[in-house]
Parts: sequence; C-alpha cells; structure tokens
Amino acid sequence: MSERTPLTLLGLGAMGTALGRSWLRAGHPVTVWNRTPARAEPLVDEGATVATSAAEAVAANQLVVTCLLDDASVGETLTEVDLAGRDLVNLTTGTPAQARALADWAAARGARFLDGGIMAVPPMIGVPGSGGYVFYSGSRELFDRRRETLAVPAGTTYVGEDPGFAALHDVALLSAMTGMLAGIAHAFALVRGENIAPKEFAPLLAGWLTAMTAAAHKAADQIEHGDYSRGVVSNLAMQVAASGTLLDTAEEQGVSAELLLPYLNLMERRLAAGHGDEDTTGVVELLPKPVP
Amino acid sequence: MSERTPLTLLGLGAMGTALGRSWLRAGHPVTVWNRTPARAEPLVDEGATVATSAAEAVAANQLVVTCLLDDASVGETLTEVDLAGRDLVNLTTGTPAQARALADWAAARGARFLDGGIMAVPPMIGVPGSGGYVFYSGSRELFDRRRETLAVPAGTTYVGEDPGFAALHDVALLSAMTGMLAGIAHAFALVRGENIAPKEFAPLLAGWLTAMTAAAHKAADQIEHGDYSRGVVSNLAMQVAASGTLLDTAEEQGVSAELLLPYLNLMERRLAAGHGDEDTTGVVELLPKPVP
Repeated sequence: MSERTPLTLLGLGAMGTALGRSWLRAGHPVTVWNRTPARAEPLVDEGATVATSAAEAVAANQLVVTCLLDDASVGETLTEVDLAGRDLVNLTTGTPAQARALADWAAARGARFLDGGIMAVPPMIGVPGSGGYVFYSGSRELFDRRRETLAVPAGTTYVGEDPGFAALHDVALLSAMTGMLAGIAHAFALVRGENIAPKEFAPLLAGWLTAMTAAAHKAADQIEHGDYSRGVVSNLAMQVAASGTLLDTAEEQGVSAELLLPYLNLMERRLAAGHGDEDTTGVVELLPKPVP
Repeated sequence: MSERTPLTLLGLGAMGTALGRSWLRAGHPVTVWNRTPARAEPLVDEGATVATSAAEAVAANQLVVTCLLDDASVGETLTEVDLAGRDLVNLTTGTPAQARALADWAAARGARFLDGGIMAVPPMIGVPGSGGYVFYSGSRELFDRRRETLAVPAGTTYVGEDPGFAALHDVALLSAMTGMLAGIAHAFALVRGENIAPKEFAPLLAGWLTAMTAAAHKAADQIEHGDYSRGVVSNLAMQVAASGTLLDTAEEQGVSAELLLPYLNLMERRLAAGHGDEDTTGVVELLPKPVP
C-alpha cells in the first residue's frame, strides 16, 4: 500500500471532525489541534496525533487544513505560527474579501494558499456518491498537487486563481438555496391547512422546482448576451399580471406574502421601467446598490 | 381509426390556441369561440369549427373547455349560456376560492365541473416528454371519463374532489418557483461583476438547487409529524449564524440583500422564540396571518 500524504487539521467542530475522520479512514496520518482539546478525542481514538499548540501542529506537516469557526479564528490561531513553506488550505466559511485578505497574508508569510467552500453537511463528508463537494480557488499549482488528498472527504471543483472565488461560489449557491427554501416554506404554508398530505405534495413540489432550475441556464444565456429578451416565453408583463393570483391565493389561505413580495416588487419596478417584453431575468439589473 | 371525442374550446389566447391545436392534431373535432373572432383563424386553418357565440359553441358538444383571461371572463362568457348536462373543464388561471365558486355555480346550472391548473407554457403543450402537465380537481367521475381526451395536450395529475385543489397546487408550486427565481437572481447579481462565465456558473447553480429540492421532502416529513427537529442536520441556530456570511458577501459585492432578508428575518424570529435546535422548516409557523 502506497504511503498516504500526512496532513495537519486545525479546528474540530462537526465539519472538521468529519473531514479528519475521512482522511484517517483513508489511511492518511493526521495531526490535529483544537482550541478545546477534548474535541480531539474522537479522532485520537481513530488514530490521529494530537498537538498541544497550533504552532506544533503546523510544524508537523507541510499540508495544513483549517476548518475553524470563522475568519477571525483563522487569524487568531495562526498569528504566532511559522507558515513558511506550508500549503495552507482554508476551509473555514467566510466571505470572498476575507479569503482574498487571508491569501495575501499567507503569501506574505511564505505559504501557498487555497481557499475552499464546502457544499456539504458533515454527514455527507467521506461518503462517496453523497453529492457533496468543495469549491476551491487560489493557487492552481497547490490545487493540482494536493488534489488527490483533498478529494478524500468530498468532490473537488476548482473555480479560479482568484482566492475569493470559492467563497463567492459557495455564498451565491447558498443564497439561491435560501430563496428556494423561502419558496418552499410559502408553498407548505399555503397547503397545510387543507386536506393535502405533505408527503404527496412534496414530490410534486420538488419535481416542479427541479424542472424550473432550467431558469438558471436561460438566465446565464441572457446575461452572457446582455439581452433579457432572448428566448423569452412568458414575458415580464405576463408574469406580473399572473402574480395577482399568487397574492390573492395567499390572502385567501390566510398566509403572509412577505416571502414573495420583494421579488414581485422588483418585477413591477422593471415592468414600470419599460421592460415588459423581456424575461424576468432583467430584475438582476435592479440589485446592485447605488455607489454612494 | 376510432372516433375521437369532439369538444368545445372557449378562449384562444396563446394557451388556448396551443391546447386547441394539440386536440386538432390528435384528430379531435374542435369547436372554438373567442371574444375577438380573428384569433380563431389559425385553428380554423387547422380544421376547427368556429362558433359565432359562446352559447352556440357550448351547444355543439358535451365536453366544454374554458381557457379565458381570468375568472371574471368565465362568468361573463357563460352567464347566458345553457350548461345543463355539460362537462365543464375550466383551465382558466384563478384562485382556489374562485374555482370553488365556479364549481357551485356550474352545479347549480346542471353541469359537471373540473378545474385545472396548467403547469406548462404554451410551447410545451402537445409535446410528449416536455414535462408539462395539468393539475385537475373536482368531479372524479368527470376526470376519469374524460381523462384520455384531457391527456392529449399535457400530462394529467388529479389532486382531489375539492375543486379548489388544482388551483391551490398550481399557485403553491408557482409561489415556490418565485422564491427560487429570487434566489437565482441574487446569485447572478453576486457573481456578474466578476470574471465568472455565466454559462459555467449556471450548471453549478442548477445542480445545487436540484440537490437541495430534497428540502421539500424533509419539510413534508417534519410537518406531517408536527416535529421540526426530525432529521435535523444543520439546525436553525447554525443557519442563522451562517447567514451573516450571506449578508456580508452581498455587502462586499455591492448587491442589495432585499431578496434574502424576509426569510432570514423569519429564521431570526423563530430562533428568538426558542427553536434553535429545530430545522429551519419551523418558519412555516410564522406565515399564517393572525385572524383579526
């Protein structure tokens, strides 16, 4: 059996622990550190080496993975640590600007840097076929050289040299999901007072939403061409007219329309600006905030 | 070749015309009427018989399909028409209450009644495999007897004797889609100022949203059991903590968070009420409007 790459893992919350376990089970020597030492015990039981400080942990291996509470925790944890020559892979959730700042900070200290955005929950880590994956951005060289090891916990999707792109992709997808969850909540609120079985309703809802993800491809085509009327079938004027039925039904069912109104309001503003013949995609033009 | 069921179609907008064409092409004799007679011409060219009044059209066949502008148009069109013995299938978009009122009105005039909610756009009508379908509710007997004819333009999904259920399912799915479209718009707004190709981003977005439609099944299970902590992986407290990154990223990218805020606000209200250990699904408890 070939030698597995040893690595250091800083941060043993639910996600860090799941990551560490997947590497250990794949045969990688793992050195761990956590601010609260007791949280290292489950991984030590599975063969991890525990370090008594972050500096000691980082000194143990060239590949260092951080999965901490937040961006500030990364700075606090590594501030006194020698990073020279290290391959630093940050899987701590943060914003694109935080990832870019961390990349600069790591480079100034002689480390190569890769940022990651984890598109999975801990139970999906190390489970082949779970569908979970991690966005990576930053050093392409580091990504290519470490890809095999990084692919152990979850699939890998590299999205560019800009170290902020992993976080940006991560947040964009989570934001879109938030919108979908809002829609799902409204839908269940509409039907739940009626004699409709939730488990019969859910497959209809999930099937419809899955089919309608085609809207993302159409939006991409329209944005790429700067033409919101490309391939339009049901135009903005028709959509705004139809939205009255959505609001009237919410009213009939005694459900607040608060989750629908912001998008419907943007549609109306875009219609009032003379874009009724276009697709609804054009509402993206209204989202950038005015530069002060 | 067996005789195809003849039918009458009232209303020849884009959807009505697509419906009529699909029946004509399948060999059904179709009698049509439209308030603006010129709109009947394309279907007459394909073999439809045009009636000079709604009453004449309704008298021509037992099966009568309406696909008009709105609920008020149905009432105006049929007010002077003898409906006794007719099988009335209303495919006009409306609310559940409008469908229920129309069902009562039709019954009082001696007609059987079925309401439909079309989950398709006109280009999907009559196209096998398009994924389009129609929710039906109301008389099960009528549905079963006319199902073969009704299945010509699009798939059929019967959702109950309550004539309002087709509209309710229709609106619930469209409302959920509105939420998803809001999320997609926010996601594109976040990335569009960056060097990220929309057509490379779209498949990642669509794939993620498709995977996350699993949330509908989980929500159904939790609602059915009245237990929002069933199967929770990432609980409400963790979700609220993570939402800061969504808002901070929107701010960094100069994008208004207006499409995300209502759902995040509901999550915070639900957390403040002591439900941090539950899933986010519990926000549906906050959507019913207080009874005045």
